[in-house]
Amino acid sequence: MPIVVQKYGGSSLADAASIKRVARRITEAKKAGNDVCVAVSAMGDSTDELLDLANEVSPQPPPREMDMLLTAGERISMSLVAMAIADLGYTVRSFTGSQAGVITDSTHGKARIIDVTPGRVTDALEKGHIVIVAGFQGVSQDTKEITTLGRGGTDTTAVALAAALGADVCEIYTDVDGVFTADPRIVPAARKINRISNEEMLELAASGSKVLHLRSVEYARRFAIPIHVRSSFSAKEGTIVTDAPVPTTTAGDTVEAPIIAGVAHDRSEAKITVVGVPDHPGKAAEIFQTCADAEINIDMIVQNVSATDTGLTDISFTCPKTDGQTGVHALKKVQESVGFGSIQYDDQIGKLSLVGAGMRSHPGVSATFFKALADTGVNIEMISTSEIRISVVTRADLLDDAVRAVHTAFGLDSADGEAVVYGGSGR
Amino acid sequence: MPIVVQKYGGSSLADAASIKRVARRITEAKKAGNDVCVAVSAMGDSTDELLDLANEVSPQPPPREMDMLLTAGERISMSLVAMAIADLGYTVRSFTGSQAGVITDSTHGKARIIDVTPGRVTDALEKGHIVIVAGFQGVSQDTKEITTLGRGGTDTTAVALAAALGADVCEIYTDVDGVFTADPRIVPAARKINRISNEEMLELAASGSKVLHLRSVEYARRFAIPIHVRSSFSAKEGTIVTDAPVPTTTAGDTVEAPIIAGVAHDRSEAKITVVGVPDHPGKAAEIFQTCADAEINIDMIVQNVSATDTGLTDISFTCPKTDGQTGVHALKKVQESVGFGSIQYDDQIGKLSLVGAGMRSHPGVSATFFKALADTGVNIEMISTSEIRISVVTRADLLDDAVRAVHTAFGLDSADGEAVVYGGSGR
Repeated sequence: MPIVVQKYGGSSLADAASIKRVARRITEAKKAGNDVCVAVSAMGDSTDELLDLANEVSPQPPPREMDMLLTAGERISMSLVAMAIADLGYTVRSFTGSQAGVITDSTHGKARIIDVTPGRVTDALEKGHIVIVAGFQGVSQDTKEITTLGRGGTDTTAVALAAALGADVCEIYTDVDGVFTADPRIVPAARKINRISNEEMLELAASGSKVLHLRSVEYARRFAIPIHVRSSFSAKEGTIVTDAPVPTTTAGDTVEAPIIAGVAHDRSEAKITVVGVPDHPGKAAEIFQTCADAEINIDMIVQNVSATDTGLTDISFTCPKTDGQTGVHALKKVQESVGFGSIQYDDQIGKLSLVGAGMRSHPGVSATFFKALADTGVNIEMISTSEIRISVVTRADLLDDAVRAVHTAFGLDSADGEAVVYGGSGR
Repeated sequence: MPIVVQKYGGSSLADAASIKRVARRITEAKKAGNDVCVAVSAMGDSTDELLDLANEVSPQPPPREMDMLLTAGERISMSLVAMAIADLGYTVRSFTGSQAGVITDSTHGKARIIDVTPGRVTDALEKGHIVIVAGFQGVSQDTKEITTLGRGGTDTTAVALAAALGADVCEIYTDVDGVFTADPRIVPAARKINRISNEEMLELAASGSKVLHLRSVEYARRFAIPIHVRSSFSAKEGTIVTDAPVPTTTAGDTVEAPIIAGVAHDRSEAKITVVGVPDHPGKAAEIFQTCADAEINIDMIVQNVSATDTGLTDISFTCPKTDGQTGVHALKKVQESVGFGSIQYDDQIGKLSLVGAGMRSHPGVSATFFKALADTGVNIEMISTSEIRISVVTRADLLDDAVRAVHTAFGLDSADGEAVVYGGSGR
């Protein structure tokens, strides 16, 4: 029997009525002849409510206890979904992450899945039960402590279960119709993407697109699990994330993939500039080792050319705002030993990223990109590129204008719909 | 180092401020030089809120899923209490019932503790941590499913942990000052009992006193764990439940135990009468086997003398109202095979119980008891006795008057304070 893994996020599970709606949707997949395993997030805003409670009790709760607390959220939603399914006449079993065999490392709050040993899930599926698994959580391999995977972790739970169960597809149900060429709240003309490669989806997710959790895409790519991102509020086809060959049309033509997949933005990062770093080999390594020891996730890094007369240079990098103060604090401790002058902290930045596998073979993308930004009067503070992505840091308050300008410049607006062809050379 | 086990109920953990207060109380016990292990209930009304959610989703949720849902409540409170303790500068570990080694049978919703294997708790205590355990829950021995112990089960968790850890005392913190001679809401003159035997406490708990969970007292008696019932809102000494010899006073006299420990009442039962049962051997057994198969907890049983001309008799019994409809339903199924006439169901009854180990050696107790009820105009519908208890069933609306009358008749009111001496013979 084909196995389908589904995932429902908190916005699809806001109250009893939503839970019953999701239950009907789940039973439809079962009725259609599939074995069905479902990963669920906590209901609506319940994770935020638990966080608020924690903050009322303690300004800096121990991460282990925070994970104990937060995992209650999925426990509640999974059992309620199971009850609603039972009420429709199906047999069902709910399992916590630990019971479902989601084994992680020991990093509380942002644990990584090491392995999935889904014995109890498989047994239940073989007995014909629908299985509901608490997303976002697991149990650490060494210490048997309860861990959480970080915000959005339920996507990764779903994909990891799909891989471990040998599922045909992992359906990620959300409150939007799929992955868009840009955030429709900022770019009303954004279009739904029907099909996107893992590589492009990875870059979009890493660049601030919140539809899929970054690690879920990495996991899906590694195990070649197709992800179908779709709305839990409609029956429409959503976005398929897969590296499988593009299917041919009924006329026998292959569909040409567009050059640009989409424009992502991210307002969650801050910029730290280490000013007056001695321009010797090894100094940058000392700085980033300090950040690594403090478990700061570094994103973009820029080092300016050393001013020849001072022997000093400035190093800027971006990291999640939530890690910002930790980073500043950790760096101040090594100020004397590294020998830099000062630290600047700036959390009023925005990041814009243009993503598309077609960039590789189409020169002129960066010229169009920078011209669009220049025409909109957006000043660029940092630039970083990958083979299929260009990212820039701007002032936060100009970010929305920048996203719209770039989206239009690359012909992504739904009104015209045609991809732009470039004649220039290089980026 | 002496080990103290404490238990805090939901009313002591209603909000963040209460949780911080409880945390301070816990750390005081640690500061005083004890190893401290604490069992906690869910916050305030949160269990009822989860039950409401479940009922919104399904009228008859699977018991397994109900246990999954409800155990989220203690998970939340235990981690918040742990956070508040960490905030006071102590190291702390919270454990679910399963993690703490609370092994139960598989009866979801009212599981019994079979064993406690507190390896993780002991390790944590040995490392100097304060340990917080989720009350009310465990894991089944055979199926490794999450179970709950039923309302009030956290008392039993605490006592079971105290026994497994070899604790010196199990302190049950609640919102009243201890065990009273009657419910102070009904009898304002009720007095706090300073010391009571396990046997008396068992009878009081079985008769409707809600201060301690019945099974926790059974457990404490079996393992000779002294229970100290006291208020989490004051530093006053509460009630010691123990079978240890009564201590001598400083003057060398032993304290005379009072004849009557207290008056309990219970409004949670219903009466089922099986009318027209053939008066043959084995018929009562058939009826109560049916109830046992349906897992109905039978309390009082009365069989009237058979009317000689019909060969039929009536059998009445009481059971929890929550089991009532299940009982009626189960009995209707065997109506033909047992051959009885009809079933009457009455949930407007109240039960009053007088409890005291002194009854054994003091004749005349029952005469005083029934006279007090008669003088108050209370009609008696059923009577049941043990060696140290007399219970009667009355109309529910007369129960409060009956409790007050009996409390006064036995000199339990705090105003006069002296125990009554009986001259009569027999009960």
